Amino acid sequence: MISKAIESDKEQITYITARTGVFSQEEIETVPILFDEYLEYGADNDAYKFIVYRDGDKVLGFACYGIRDLADGVYDLFWIAVDPGVHQKGVGRALINATEAAVRELGGRIIIAETSGPTEYESTRKFYVKVGFVNEATIKDFYRSGDDLKIFTKRI
Amino acid sequence: MISKAIESDKEQITYITARTGVFSQEEIETVPILFDEYLEYGADNDAYKFIVYRDGDKVLGFACYGIRDLADGVYDLFWIAVDPGVHQKGVGRALINATEAAVRELGGRIIIAETSGPTEYESTRKFYVKVGFVNEATIKDFYRSGDDLKIFTKRI
Repeated sequence: MISKAIESDKEQITYITARTGVFSQEEIETVPILFDEYLEYGADNDAYKFIVYRDGDKVLGFACYGIRDLADGVYDLFWIAVDPGVHQKGVGRALINATEAAVRELGGRIIIAETSGPTEYESTRKFYVKVGFVNEATIKDFYRSGDDLKIFTKRI
Repeated sequence: MISKAIESDKEQITYITARTGVFSQEEIETVPILFDEYLEYGADNDAYKFIVYRDGDKVLGFACYGIRDLADGVYDLFWIAVDPGVHQKGVGRALINATEAAVRELGGRIIIAETSGPTEYESTRKFYVKVGFVNEATIKDFYRSGDDLKIFTKRI
């Protein structure tokens, strides 16, 4: 059910991002921009790779990851989002598993997921821990005063 | 003695980066690429700003900084390098002071400098501490096994 994203997924991916309720307007607007770069450079580019969890024509969730410059085998998980209507059904875990498998195949050693400190991200942080990530580093007040950058990592 | 970098500084900036002896070939090759983006987008773009410490026609050091996406008032200090022939003469500190002043004027709150764990970067890490940065976070084995990412921050 997981496959590389295709052009016609763009609208559903953007819609899911908005529907999660945890991303800022600026963050939501970033997704279609990255998706256009992904389409432009092709699915084999290392900068942005989009995968989707598909049920028939419906996209239930997506992940976007890419290689970190100037490091050896480090991949950023830029986005993972699941339609709020299908939470707790294993879509997120399946997307993480597929990302890990792909990163491992590319020779990756570490996946990094950056998230935020406030309460509305608590379920995101719990999810990362559940699928084996560790909150390895924190930058206080990064996003704004009272809103820390939480860097989660997973060795694969 | 500190001013915005101009096109003719490119060669000296690249040369200084190579001469420091601490950057990898890949990192050295990144500098002229960023410098070209800086020239292309103009000195007022927020992504990459280059400043130089100039003594007559000679560039003694440079810094490159830019705004971090999706955060409020966070600037990355991507590069700071001083010609090894003029170390300990205050060039680095002057570049940091100028960067801070510029970032403050742009409404910045935090400057982030990412560096590496191994011994050859020890003088870099000591320099950051001397000019008021703190090693706020570390990602183990980031660059490669045994080579950590050290994230230094300074609140301004």
